[in-house]
Parts: sequence; structure tokens; C-alpha cells
Amino acid sequence: MTEFEQRRRAAADRLSGAKVDALLVSSPPNVRYLSGYSGSNGLMLVTAADEWFFTDPRYGEEASATITCHVQVCQGPLMKAAAALAKRNKLKRIGIEPSWLRLGDYYELQQAMGPGVELKPVPGAVEALRAVKSPGEIAKIRNSVRVSSEAFSRTLNRIRPGVRENQIAAEIDFQMRVLGAEKNAFDSIVAAGPRSALPHAHPTTHPLGPNELVLIDIGAMVGGYASDMTRVACIGTPPKRIREIYKAVAEAQLAALDAVRPGVPVSKVDAAARQVLKGHGLEKQFVHSTGHGLGLEIHEPPKIGKGEKMRLQVGMVITIEPGAYVAGFAGVRIEDTVLVTERGCQIITQTPKKLFLL
Amino acid sequence: MTEFEQRRRAAADRLSGAKVDALLVSSPPNVRYLSGYSGSNGLMLVTAADEWFFTDPRYGEEASATITCHVQVCQGPLMKAAAALAKRNKLKRIGIEPSWLRLGDYYELQQAMGPGVELKPVPGAVEALRAVKSPGEIAKIRNSVRVSSEAFSRTLNRIRPGVRENQIAAEIDFQMRVLGAEKNAFDSIVAAGPRSALPHAHPTTHPLGPNELVLIDIGAMVGGYASDMTRVACIGTPPKRIREIYKAVAEAQLAALDAVRPGVPVSKVDAAARQVLKGHGLEKQFVHSTGHGLGLEIHEPPKIGKGEKMRLQVGMVITIEPGAYVAGFAGVRIEDTVLVTERGCQIITQTPKKLFLL
Repeated sequence: MTEFEQRRRAAADRLSGAKVDALLVSSPPNVRYLSGYSGSNGLMLVTAADEWFFTDPRYGEEASATITCHVQVCQGPLMKAAAALAKRNKLKRIGIEPSWLRLGDYYELQQAMGPGVELKPVPGAVEALRAVKSPGEIAKIRNSVRVSSEAFSRTLNRIRPGVRENQIAAEIDFQMRVLGAEKNAFDSIVAAGPRSALPHAHPTTHPLGPNELVLIDIGAMVGGYASDMTRVACIGTPPKRIREIYKAVAEAQLAALDAVRPGVPVSKVDAAARQVLKGHGLEKQFVHSTGHGLGLEIHEPPKIGKGEKMRLQVGMVITIEPGAYVAGFAGVRIEDTVLVTERGCQIITQTPKKLFLL
Repeated sequence: MTEFEQRRRAAADRLSGAKVDALLVSSPPNVRYLSGYSGSNGLMLVTAADEWFFTDPRYGEEASATITCHVQVCQGPLMKAAAALAKRNKLKRIGIEPSWLRLGDYYELQQAMGPGVELKPVPGAVEALRAVKSPGEIAKIRNSVRVSSEAFSRTLNRIRPGVRENQIAAEIDFQMRVLGAEKNAFDSIVAAGPRSALPHAHPTTHPLGPNELVLIDIGAMVGGYASDMTRVACIGTPPKRIREIYKAVAEAQLAALDAVRPGVPVSKVDAAARQVLKGHGLEKQFVHSTGHGLGLEIHEPPKIGKGEKMRLQVGMVITIEPGAYVAGFAGVRIEDTVLVTERGCQIITQTPKKLFLL
């Protein structure tokens, strides 16, 4: 059995627990996980006995050559083809993905299926499989992390006063591509001076001034898998207040890393970072979660945040990325991609963790 | 009134026709169209009398400084905040976006709104406004087209035998960024040899061989607006069959451009291209639609395809991109971004239309 066939069987094993005859998988990363198909128009139907992949003629040739289950190349909407197949196979209860399926597609699907078929939301069935990575997936994430770290290192040498945020971002993105990335895992964030306090700032033409902090948050997609890293740098001498904020965030990041261990609720990892920042009077300046899983998507379960219920498992790959953002002044975030191991965690990101001075 | 205020009032003018008290706008490009907000977590509620924008603390500072309607910065899910506001304002029928809203969010929204509120799908309300571009938007699209054409031209000089597909793509993407693009409008397609027959091929490490055709389909996002262009090039001498296919596709593209005129049903534009390819025995090799609108999104109404009902209007900006794909041999697509004018159309794409010989 190929890895994809194993995954499809693992998805099929969840059908009876979810009390459905079939699972209709429409989320592109879930479709990719189950089939290897990386295009924009694919759909899968998994039953206890069999599996079908649907796509349109643009992808027909490639899909038929590479996907090892039934492949249907459809002229019209894929949902209709899946509905027709479900009817022919007398499937009565079909699981759908509520966090992906659009309301309009749901209505169309309902109509195509007709009155005899129940569509039942089955949240996170494939995502649950994806949360724990296989050795092959971990190797791909390591490679993705390596690419973004190397691109960061190559670009860092070019940061001088006067370089613009968007030039730095373009250079990092180019280097990631040259190093083998298909694309960015997300729009690179390069934010200097007070703009570093905007946690998701878009790069602008702002030129870096002396003694200005610059926050760089980047990730690559390599072989379909994401990486995610944040570092901050300062041209010249960082003001005392920035050094203090950096120290507090670094301490919070280490505390969260220390809390990572199989069986630990993710909320405890989040609390560990938050507790440290509270000690430095920076709790209110930490306006997001401590981290997230990553893999075929840049954000996937588990979310490492307040009130989240999941527990860490060996083989999960997550980010640990506390930050503190002082409006109008500066923001610091430190982020690594880490693997949950038997004994705690292994930090995959090899880029040195320091306030880079340029 | 700012342009955004005008658009919000235009959206409000559609409420009574849709028989709703308010429109809940959750699609990011629609939110951006109505507010200027370009982040990843925004929501708008528009009533006949008033407008609210919702976001989370990451974007609070920026939103409050730039958005001219009520701004609510929410700690929890934005949908819940919008539901609370709808209750306070006794809104009974709320329009939602079925082509954007996820089924899971719809269930959450339903629960938050409670039994007294009806959620009514109102498809394409903001998209209908967006289909016809303002002079300011057309200027932005022109700029985006200029950036991708210039990046293409700079990169073309570097295509030599042995250059890899992904190196060409990385170079084009870098040049687009250096020229001012925030990012790609879509993943650049660079497909050589038989891979050019896969209409949506991902760039690989395949090195370009002599006499090989290479298809390049690129677009930039500049100031939030997309561009889209496809050209083909050949290293050395193109085989006779490739020249024939090129000629047929070029003829089909001109026929479609000739059909573009205000009042014409988009299906007639599609038919014009299809008819020409049929004359060359290539109808079955044209496996996609003739084009699509573009703007804040790379694909937006109108879709220029078989059986589509919309009619062209002055100010629409669309692509015209017929193609022919001979499996295992080669594919050709020729694509321009064009503006519908009083007299027909204006081709915005300035890149020469020819089979580039390198």
C-alpha cells in the first residue's frame, strides 16, 4: 500500500464512528493528503469499501497517471458527479467538511443528492489524521524549514540602512524559490520601526533607519509542506527598551518550549508563555496565540492557545511564537517550528535565536 | 464621501431588493472593497442606515486609523460580535454570502443570532458592484498589468537552453516584486515541452531543451489588484505542428477580442473562440473557458464561458485566453487582460503577441 492508500483507509476507518456511509472530502489540503493531487479542483469520496477522486479535464491526464484509486474526469461541477456516484452506490449518509464547504456548494450538493440522502457535518476527520506527521512528512517539513532559514541567512547579509521592507521581502522570497520552494507558505512579513508592532503588517516601501528594529516572519512551501519562523534584527544599537522587550519574549518562548511534551494540553503551553510576559508587564501586549500546527497548511490543528482542548502527541509539528507589541513603538516575536518528541520537543528551526545586530 | 463610503452606500441600496435588513459581508475581497482593509480577519455589517467593521486586536490600531465607519475590535469570533450587534439593532433578516461563508461558520452564526433572526443567502451582491470597475480601479489594474509585462520582458532575456522551469518562475516573481507587486496574483505557471499541455502545471526543475515550447502564465497583485497574461516562447526553431497550433489559438483569441462589446452575452465571446478552434480541429483540445473577470481577485465575475448568462458592460475588465492542449506534445495559450469600452475593448496588456523565439 502506498502512503496515500494507507491514509485513505485511515479516513475510511473513521466512517463508522462518525455514523456515515461515506466522507466527501473537498478541502484542497485534505484532498492532497489523501491523493497527492496538488491542483485547485479536486474532490474525494471515501467509503468503507472504495475511493473515488474527481477532477476536471485540465488535470485529467496528470490525475489518471498518478492517483491509485478510481479517477473520474468531469465536464461539469465535481459535486454533481460525486452526487451521481453516491446515488448509484446507494449511499444514504454522507459526511461533509463544515470548516471547508461553502454554504452555496452545500445547497447545490443537497439538491444534487436529492431527498433520500442526509448530509452530515463531520468536522476535522482528515485534519485529525494530519495533526500527527509521518516520518516522511517530518522530513519534508525539515526541508522546508531549512529552505526558509537559508533564505533568511542569505538575505540578512543584505540588510543595510535605507533598504526597504518590500525589497527585503522580495529577496527572501526569491531565495526561498531558488532553494527549492514552490511558493511562500504565507505573505512574508517584514516590518520595521513602529510598524513591527503591527503583528501582521504588509511590507511597505519604508526604508530602514539606523537603530530601527525590523521583524521578519517567513515561511516556505517545499514539497507541499510549510515552515514558519520569526526573528528580529536591529540596525545599529537597539534602545534599552527594545532589549528589555526582546529578553521578555525570548524568556516566554523558552518557557513555552519547556512546556511542550506529549500528553500536555496545548493551553498549558500557551499559559507558560503568557505567564512569563505577565511577569514583565507585557501580557496585554501579547495579542495572539502562542502557536499552531503546520504541515500541508500553514495553520492546522492543534492551535496552541487559551481555552484550546487538544493534547500534544508525538509527531505533531507546531510553532512556538509568543510576541509583545507596543503600539507606536516596536514589536518583537520569536518563532520556531518544533517537533513533539517522546521526551519533549526538538526545535527544527536551526537559525540562531538572538536579536540580530546589523 | 470617500470611494469606500460610496461603495458601502451602493451595497446598502441593494438591501431592499434582496429583502434583508442588513448584509453581512465576510469574503475578504468584498470586505476590502467596502472598507480598504486588506488583512485576513475582517467582517462588515451594512444596514440601510449604518455600517460596522469588525476585526481582532492584531489589526485594531490600523483599522481604527483608516476605516471611516464604526470599527469594533473583538477579542472573540467576529461572527459573534456581529450577531450581538444585530440583536441590539433588532435586525431580523440578515443577508449572508453563500459563495464565501463556510457551512461551519453558518451554523455558528445561526446559533449566535438565535431563533428570531433569519439568515438569507444573498449571492453576489458585492461581486455585482465589483464587476464594473471605477476609473481608479482600472488605473490600478493597468499598473498591475504593466508590472507583470515588465517582469516577463526582463526575464525573457534570461531564458536559455538548460534554464529550469522553476528558475524562470522565481525570476519572474522576483521581478514583479521589485517592480512593486505585493505578491503573485496566482502561482506562476512555467511549463515546457509536453508539460505545456497541462493547462495548470506547476513549475518543475525540468531544464528547457532546444526547440522546446515553454508556456508562461503570470500575474501580479499591485495595490490590491490582479493582472493575468499568458505567452508562449520557443528555444530555437518551433516544429511545424507547434506553429500551426499557435496560429489557430492566436486566431481564436482575436475572434474573441472582436466579439467583446457592451451588451454582448459572455457566452458569445466564448463561442467566438471555440468556433475558430473547431475550424482547426482543436475544439476538444480547448478544455477551459475563454476568460474571466479580474480585480481584487484573480477570478471574479463575469466568467466568459459556455452557458454563462451575464452581458458585458463598459468598465468590466476581463481576460481573453483561449488555448489548445495536445496531450503528450504541447499546449498553447494566449491571454490578455482587456477593458470593455463603449466601442468594443481596449487591450491593456502591452506585451507583444507572438510566438517568442529565443
